[in-house]
Amino acid sequence: MHSFEISPVDRALENLLQNKVDRKTKPLGALGALEKLAIQIGLIQQRLDPQLCQPQLLVFAGDHGAAQAGVSAYPQDVTWQMVENFLAGGAAINVFARQNGLALTVVDAGVAHDFGPRDVKRTAPDFFENRGLSPLLLDAKMAPGTANYLEQPAMSAAQCAEAMARGAAIVAQLAATGCNVLGFGEMGIGNTAAAALLTHCLTGLPLAECVGRGTGLDDAGLKRKQALLATALARYRAAGGDDAPRQVLAEFGGFEMAMMVGAMLAAAERRLVLLVDGFIVGAAALTAIRLQPALRDYCVFCHRSAEAGHRVQLQALQAEPLLDLGLRLGEGTGAALAFPLVQAAVNFLNEMASFESAGVADKRDDVVAPRVSSAG
Amino acid sequence: MHSFEISPVDRALENLLQNKVDRKTKPLGALGALEKLAIQIGLIQQRLDPQLCQPQLLVFAGDHGAAQAGVSAYPQDVTWQMVENFLAGGAAINVFARQNGLALTVVDAGVAHDFGPRDVKRTAPDFFENRGLSPLLLDAKMAPGTANYLEQPAMSAAQCAEAMARGAAIVAQLAATGCNVLGFGEMGIGNTAAAALLTHCLTGLPLAECVGRGTGLDDAGLKRKQALLATALARYRAAGGDDAPRQVLAEFGGFEMAMMVGAMLAAAERRLVLLVDGFIVGAAALTAIRLQPALRDYCVFCHRSAEAGHRVQLQALQAEPLLDLGLRLGEGTGAALAFPLVQAAVNFLNEMASFESAGVADKRDDVVAPRVSSAG
Repeated sequence: MHSFEISPVDRALENLLQNKVDRKTKPLGALGALEKLAIQIGLIQQRLDPQLCQPQLLVFAGDHGAAQAGVSAYPQDVTWQMVENFLAGGAAINVFARQNGLALTVVDAGVAHDFGPRDVKRTAPDFFENRGLSPLLLDAKMAPGTANYLEQPAMSAAQCAEAMARGAAIVAQLAATGCNVLGFGEMGIGNTAAAALLTHCLTGLPLAECVGRGTGLDDAGLKRKQALLATALARYRAAGGDDAPRQVLAEFGGFEMAMMVGAMLAAAERRLVLLVDGFIVGAAALTAIRLQPALRDYCVFCHRSAEAGHRVQLQALQAEPLLDLGLRLGEGTGAALAFPLVQAAVNFLNEMASFESAGVADKRDDVVAPRVSSAG
Repeated sequence: MHSFEISPVDRALENLLQNKVDRKTKPLGALGALEKLAIQIGLIQQRLDPQLCQPQLLVFAGDHGAAQAGVSAYPQDVTWQMVENFLAGGAAINVFARQNGLALTVVDAGVAHDFGPRDVKRTAPDFFENRGLSPLLLDAKMAPGTANYLEQPAMSAAQCAEAMARGAAIVAQLAATGCNVLGFGEMGIGNTAAAALLTHCLTGLPLAECVGRGTGLDDAGLKRKQALLATALARYRAAGGDDAPRQVLAEFGGFEMAMMVGAMLAAAERRLVLLVDGFIVGAAALTAIRLQPALRDYCVFCHRSAEAGHRVQLQALQAEPLLDLGLRLGEGTGAALAFPLVQAAVNFLNEMASFESAGVADKRDDVVAPRVSSAG
């Protein structure tokens, strides 16, 4: 089994970064959350002038055995249909990734559909290079969907480890091309149910607080989902299941989630900035953080999902996301929409003038330096 | 006096817009606030496929007579020094406007400083054309700062009307070049104090709730500011001052604020999308809305400022801003940072595939159309 070694960020640079932020031509703290973000990225990269290079979004897709039982408002076929929509460029994530300059790769982690031959060099090292912004499909299929966790574990421990390893391998290739900021998204009918189970097991908070309406269940549908998940949990507990992250992930997770956990661990190991989307990506991040707590340092939480259980996750991770727009779409849309704010944090740190360079009086010293003509 | 005629948006298209949003390949409502925003912009432009053209930011700068009395943590000279910083490209608003593709114009509405000759064609109709993203200074100076409202009205009624007319004229020129989305920003030491007085008078909420720390007053400074503003208000009330928007604006406003009110009215009259920044721009928007309530339909509230009084304004206008990042910088930074979200709202409406065009099953009918290869 691959083991990941993730170090907490070295905070020795923090004072220098804070000082650089504080000398910018603005009142102290006036850029709010963007100031904290700029310092976080500086610490991840161990630079006073961090750079975001080749931003990428990986959208992991997979099907869930439990979806047949009625945990979603949509039929399972929507998973592969949406993958086709991603490849055709017509989904929300395509629109937002294009707009904000993120390259998009769709990873078939375990969709119950044969996508047939595609013009894709699966293993070539140049997979991620020179392809502009047009989305490609990467075939990393573990199986055509997981098993139904109402009856048995969704995947075996070996499958879970293999899915994580494949996710890690994808990130290793991608990082080798120079990408240092990576957004995560997902598609999988039934995966808010899986994320709810993971969130419950890994935070210890009541299941009812972790379960939401997903793609749009009505009251009766929500009740059915809650009852089904309670049943799955009871079966797991009766079989002696504990709350170890890998075991919970194998028991209830989707292949897209397990692959994402591996991808996140590999990304943090390489000191990439991780753009964490909403509830399902959040469940993967929570799992990865329980495995390697230092991974938290590399996470930028992009938005607060309208899905109920997301608040539980964010609370458990003491995370304050950048956006709160009532989104509940997944696909990585929150990450793609928040990316300009992440870029803005880096840009103000690098491009804004300081009080000294701009000749602006600071209230703290009231010294007006001579006017200069260019930004420092 | 110029009179503005602003019509409420015609809502006849609302159902068609809502239906277009609902047929996109996503669960109903899953794009949250962006869906409402897309519909708002469609209604402003009276189109099912709205377009944002030549986005512009106008930053109005002016000085306040009351600034000498100690209502700000910074000396008054910072106003002109920051204008120089804008022109040199080194301020936060430069960084964010550049990043997000907004052209930037700085308007000297009444700065207490002689900027000397600049390479600017003040009145030429091509002022706003063909200049890329490099910021220019537009000279619309009313006077070198307002009078001190602790002693007398900040400006006369005639000055206030003239400032509004100049703001309107700027927008008329700008709209003639094809710009249909306009962000507002400001610079003026002392203008959170003025905005607090306007907010109090126009909402009727307690002055203490409307006054904040501005650029960073400490507790003692905040107390002094509150006491000074209470004194100014008492003088105004004793002189028979009422809460009519134009009178309040002339009494306490800055030239940058009066000019902005005129600019906003002219922009809404021409059916532009107005990007409303934080507390000071919000005070101008509140004034403009009190003059012409239909202006509210054209406003996109971009961020929730950390400045205390902004919450009062937003509550009074029942506005839910796009961003809540603890910003309190002004300059239009919240508008520039939110612009990609505004663009995203328009883009998803225009570019996303529908269930039918993408061949994705909708939970409402479960009909799977044949797969298609391009986005609809």
